Amino acid sequence: MIWNTNLRWRLPVTCLLLQVALVVLFGVFVRYDLDADPHWIGSQGDENTTSDMENEFYYRYPSFQDVHVMIFVGFGFLMTFLQRYGYSSVGFNFLLAAFGIQWALLMQGWFHSYKEGYIRLGVENLINADFCVGSVCVAFGAVLGKVSPVQLLIMTLFQVTLFSVNEFILLSLLEVKDAGGSMTIHTFGAYFGLTVTWILYRPSLHQSKERQSSVYHSDLFAMIGTLFLWMYWPSFNSAVSKHGDAQHRAAINTYCSLAACVLTSVALSSALHKKGKLDMVHIQNATLAGGVAVGTAAEMMLMPYGSLIVGFICGIVSTLGFVYLTPFLESQLRIQDTCGIHNLHGLPGIIGAIVGAVTASCASAKVYGIKGLASFFGFDGFKTSWDSSMQGKFQAAGLFVSLAIALVGGIIVGVILKLPFWGQPADENCFEDSVYWEMPEELKSTVLHPEDSTLKPAEP
Amino acid sequence: MIWNTNLRWRLPVTCLLLQVALVVLFGVFVRYDLDADPHWIGSQGDENTTSDMENEFYYRYPSFQDVHVMIFVGFGFLMTFLQRYGYSSVGFNFLLAAFGIQWALLMQGWFHSYKEGYIRLGVENLINADFCVGSVCVAFGAVLGKVSPVQLLIMTLFQVTLFSVNEFILLSLLEVKDAGGSMTIHTFGAYFGLTVTWILYRPSLHQSKERQSSVYHSDLFAMIGTLFLWMYWPSFNSAVSKHGDAQHRAAINTYCSLAACVLTSVALSSALHKKGKLDMVHIQNATLAGGVAVGTAAEMMLMPYGSLIVGFICGIVSTLGFVYLTPFLESQLRIQDTCGIHNLHGLPGIIGAIVGAVTASCASAKVYGIKGLASFFGFDGFKTSWDSSMQGKFQAAGLFVSLAIALVGGIIVGVILKLPFWGQPADENCFEDSVYWEMPEELKSTVLHPEDSTLKPAEP
Amino acid sequence: MIWNTNLRWRLPVTCLLLQVALVVLFGVFVRYDLDADPHWIGSQGDENTTSDMENEFYYRYPSFQDVHVMIFVGFGFLMTFLQRYGYSSVGFNFLLAAFGIQWALLMQGWFHSYKEGYIRLGVENLINADFCVGSVCVAFGAVLGKVSPVQLLIMTLFQVTLFSVNEFILLSLLEVKDAGGSMTIHTFGAYFGLTVTWILYRPSLHQSKERQSSVYHSDLFAMIGTLFLWMYWPSFNSAVSKHGDAQHRAAINTYCSLAACVLTSVALSSALHKKGKLDMVHIQNATLAGGVAVGTAAEMMLMPYGSLIVGFICGIVSTLGFVYLTPFLESQLRIQDTCGIHNLHGLPGIIGAIVGAVTASCASAKVYGIKGLASFFGFDGFKTSWDSSMQGKFQAAGLFVSLAIALVGGIIVGVILKLPFWGQPADENCFEDSVYWEMPEELKSTVLHPEDSTLKPAEP
Repeated sequence: MIWNTNLRWRLPVTCLLLQVALVVLFGVFVRYDLDADPHWIGSQGDENTTSDMENEFYYRYPSFQDVHVMIFVGFGFLMTFLQRYGYSSVGFNFLLAAFGIQWALLMQGWFHSYKEGYIRLGVENLINADFCVGSVCVAFGAVLGKVSPVQLLIMTLFQVTLFSVNEFILLSLLEVKDAGGSMTIHTFGAYFGLTVTWILYRPSLHQSKERQSSVYHSDLFAMIGTLFLWMYWPSFNSAVSKHGDAQHRAAINTYCSLAACVLTSVALSSALHKKGKLDMVHIQNATLAGGVAVGTAAEMMLMPYGSLIVGFICGIVSTLGFVYLTPFLESQLRIQDTCGIHNLHGLPGIIGAIVGAVTASCASAKVYGIKGLASFFGFDGFKTSWDSSMQGKFQAAGLFVSLAIALVGGIIVGVILKLPFWGQPADENCFEDSVYWEMPEELKSTVLHPEDSTLKPAEP
Repeated sequence: MIWNTNLRWRLPVTCLLLQVALVVLFGVFVRYDLDADPHWIGSQGDENTTSDMENEFYYRYPSFQDVHVMIFVGFGFLMTFLQRYGYSSVGFNFLLAAFGIQWALLMQGWFHSYKEGYIRLGVENLINADFCVGSVCVAFGAVLGKVSPVQLLIMTLFQVTLFSVNEFILLSLLEVKDAGGSMTIHTFGAYFGLTVTWILYRPSLHQSKERQSSVYHSDLFAMIGTLFLWMYWPSFNSAVSKHGDAQHRAAINTYCSLAACVLTSVALSSALHKKGKLDMVHIQNATLAGGVAVGTAAEMMLMPYGSLIVGFICGIVSTLGFVYLTPFLESQLRIQDTCGIHNLHGLPGIIGAIVGAVTASCASAKVYGIKGLASFFGFDGFKTSWDSSMQGKFQAAGLFVSLAIALVGGIIVGVILKLPFWGQPADENCFEDSVYWEMPEELKSTVLHPEDSTLKPAEP
Repeated sequence: MIWNTNLRWRLPVTCLLLQVALVVLFGVFVRYDLDADPHWIGSQGDENTTSDMENEFYYRYPSFQDVHVMIFVGFGFLMTFLQRYGYSSVGFNFLLAAFGIQWALLMQGWFHSYKEGYIRLGVENLINADFCVGSVCVAFGAVLGKVSPVQLLIMTLFQVTLFSVNEFILLSLLEVKDAGGSMTIHTFGAYFGLTVTWILYRPSLHQSKERQSSVYHSDLFAMIGTLFLWMYWPSFNSAVSKHGDAQHRAAINTYCSLAACVLTSVALSSALHKKGKLDMVHIQNATLAGGVAVGTAAEMMLMPYGSLIVGFICGIVSTLGFVYLTPFLESQLRIQDTCGIHNLHGLPGIIGAIVGAVTASCASAKVYGIKGLASFFGFDGFKTSWDSSMQGKFQAAGLFVSLAIALVGGIIVGVILKLPFWGQPADENCFEDSVYWEMPEELKSTVLHPEDSTLKPAEP
């Protein structure tokens, strides 16, 4: 099918409308948190015992910057592995994330930071907005190469909204712990994206097959993304943990899980190749599964060896998924998952949720200390009557809620995106930058064979 | 015109002379700040209430590292978009910045950190030196591809000096606030660089036109630069703000402005292309204008929506600049601005200065608190008689001083650089690495057609 | 000689065995440090005077992340300069580092963090593990392109073990100061790697010569590595320094030394080329020598000008090494040093050890303050009878111990790696990704001429 891919008015109008709406909403609703307000000076109390260092900024900002790099460079470059979709991978990720963080500040703000008529903005909101957008970047991986930037903006609009609702249900209603977002970010993002791509199924996508692979240097660009995701994942999982030991522990656990995951990914990648050769796709993706799978439990007393075991398993599961599951999903279930997010975020996200539920169930005063247990799980608040096994059950419930909202939401959004006027590319022009980008001279003449039919407005 | 581009003696002698001079000057003038000196231990006072955390290092170092990445990777890779100038973009930026930070430590030290006969070095000096060099990197963008490394070292020597004088006038004499350097770094750097390139006008530059564009992978390298600049800009604008809420607020405002700027840049880029396609030049550059334009006001009570508005406007202005103004400047005013710094640093810098002046003028005790207002603007010091509107006027004065020094300084430095013995390339060899770099085998035979005439010493 | 390079069982079995062993050992030995344990809450003492900020995490985590980037992106991409070895450079570095950090946590833990039957893990252990692996990455540079991933894992296993023994002797028995690891990391890593490559000498390596050079974009990828190493080196040298002024000073000294090193590297690179052209190899490597050479003395009172002098000298020495020494080592001593680690880590490491010994010898109460001197060198502990000159002598002894262990260990490990069943490539297939990696379509047909003979199991 041929759609009109000339976005001259649709993309600018979408961007400008969204941005104007954001300006107005920010004007009405958003102010600074006390820690970012000049009144903070007077509010610190006795100046002899408090210090400027107590400002939340110093606890969170370095982690925030690491997370920020993961969203924009990590996810952006991870998807540049396609030979002729580098501009779009990095550029559209940039666009959707820049829009998404603003919308997330509002949505998450209304749910979590709304005080006296205003959303109060501080560094933790910035981190959470990046987290929320992380789930959109995950879903982007499923539809990569097959959607227009207008579709991506619309998907972001809806997904951020659904994410915030789901997150509110999990964190505030079910009192679930999920600091690194195994459920809220990865499971939700992956199954949302997979559902969308299932709805958007393209039967003739094989016409673009020759572009759905890498070239030598595109794989190296993708490794930039992989490594920044891998290195900064300890910051991701610890960024919004409680100050002190919990944040410290979350970083250590993530570091351990990721390290173990690399070895088992490499092992399986080699074992599954008939000549024992390694596959860049596995190295680029499966090595990260360990970070996803300790997202919920990282701040808990998972223990270093527990983290290694989680990483060990996920490297295996994820690599097996790339080799056997992705082709099966495409051929049997009509789910075309460009980046294999099911293997990197879907399965490891579910594993992470289960690991979190089990770890929470096993929590005891012996391990955490009486004070530590009450403080960590908030059992000293209105959850006084809870115990660890209750916490574990609610953790499990959180997983099912996330999956349900992802599936239902994905269907609705998928149907909306299927409408024919969003400028999506034809099947034979998928995974091709030149549809939406002005190309360098070298490529203008050679690459896009069917340019005319696509780029001229389709006959009415 | 043909110049001798063999730098065998000129470049080594320049580098070694400069470095020897720096060693001697550091030996005579530079010592550690108390916070970096072993005497710090005894100086903390009552050890029960103070902590190691109070060392300035912990307030500034993470921001410093982000700024450091912006200068070396951000600016360096941003300029690799040219198809055959990647070595020089990254390499010369590395060279000039490494020299510039040392000279800036001295120049800024004499003006701001001179105590008891010595310049006292701490982490804040390192940040300020990076800032100063940032303005040189901006100017480098205007002359990129058309100058030799010797010329760049000389330009850096003078520009750092002029920057420091200008900064001293603004910050110390006019008591201007400019934490993110809209005036001192961006406006000054841009108009200085534009003046230099205007003096160095090359009428036959069209002979190198085929190399003054990108190839596919060079644009992806450039996006590495863009993204690290974009992500770390909140650290840039907050790096030397006052501890606590001001630093926190500066980061939030910059984050907001940059996000908005991405959407309007994309909107305009698509709207201005006849087929609605995006242009990588705009995505690489205009998306950053929002960071420039909140440089002055970021730490003030600009409000999150105010930041969005600034970013909104700058994305539009900057993209329009790339499409209409840069060609106009080149054809009508003989200003050849390789990277379009006028659109990314010039105009947004001026907007930033104006936004800063207006925001300062509007400051009131209602918004900042009585204590906050006095403390933030320093009205409790010798500026007791000042009020916000006075501050606003001085802010505006700062802009004009910066422009004046940039223009006069640029003319002088441009004339010096026009001398014929600095090893500058011929018009037909601009934007070409092989003039100054040993090339890989693959390119030696193919790329440089007129190699002989350039690389052999010109006939006397 | 032809070896069987099909790793289908050898690599997976090696990875899985190592990882299972690590899981078991972590289970038996590794627990959280108090700062990462929920009991930390109760242990902080009087809560009026202590704060969450006092958790070690906040002193060390930002530096840890910078070091982490250096190991994985810095070293990984630095080695991508080879035209056809990018996958392996980044990928094998990723693999060996992920294994190495886990093994280092155990080895260093037994020596330094073993309390009440358990290794106690905190952020400082993570940094030290990265440091340890840094020395393996250095050694990897010597054998780059000539070994299989199985060999690398075995080398890592042994080198981490030897590193830890050497580090224990230096830091705990000889009471040497070496915060940035001039001796423990760089000298040890370099001479270990050089000894291994000397044992593994390949007389017919010239058959791969055409691949042992760069192409245009591979050099740009390598600059990503260079710049991240260069920018974050101040974090590297200060990461485990004492809180406060020592950490602050280490960062300043490293910053200064690195800046000076760039100018002299550029000067020599140009001066040593017959047409005055710069060589990317020098810019990528020699510019970093200044960081290596202040590794020991960075936290001492080296003074800013002292740091400049060290950087000045190392830029010259390192560049001279690349031009004259590396070819000499290869042709005369049969040491094939792929990345020239002798110039970047070997010689500068020795210079760093000497600078450290001299600086320690010169330490006086006048410079450090009485309290500062005792506290910095630990003269107030069991070293009460020591003075500065004694410290200096022990520093010098540390250098010789490091060299001795590197040489003896390198010989043993080299002999083990010389065994014929580790899957090493044939001489004509060195520096070639396709031996161990599934390649993109574009390269499958063209690159590897002698694929068959290598990839099929060798005839018995």
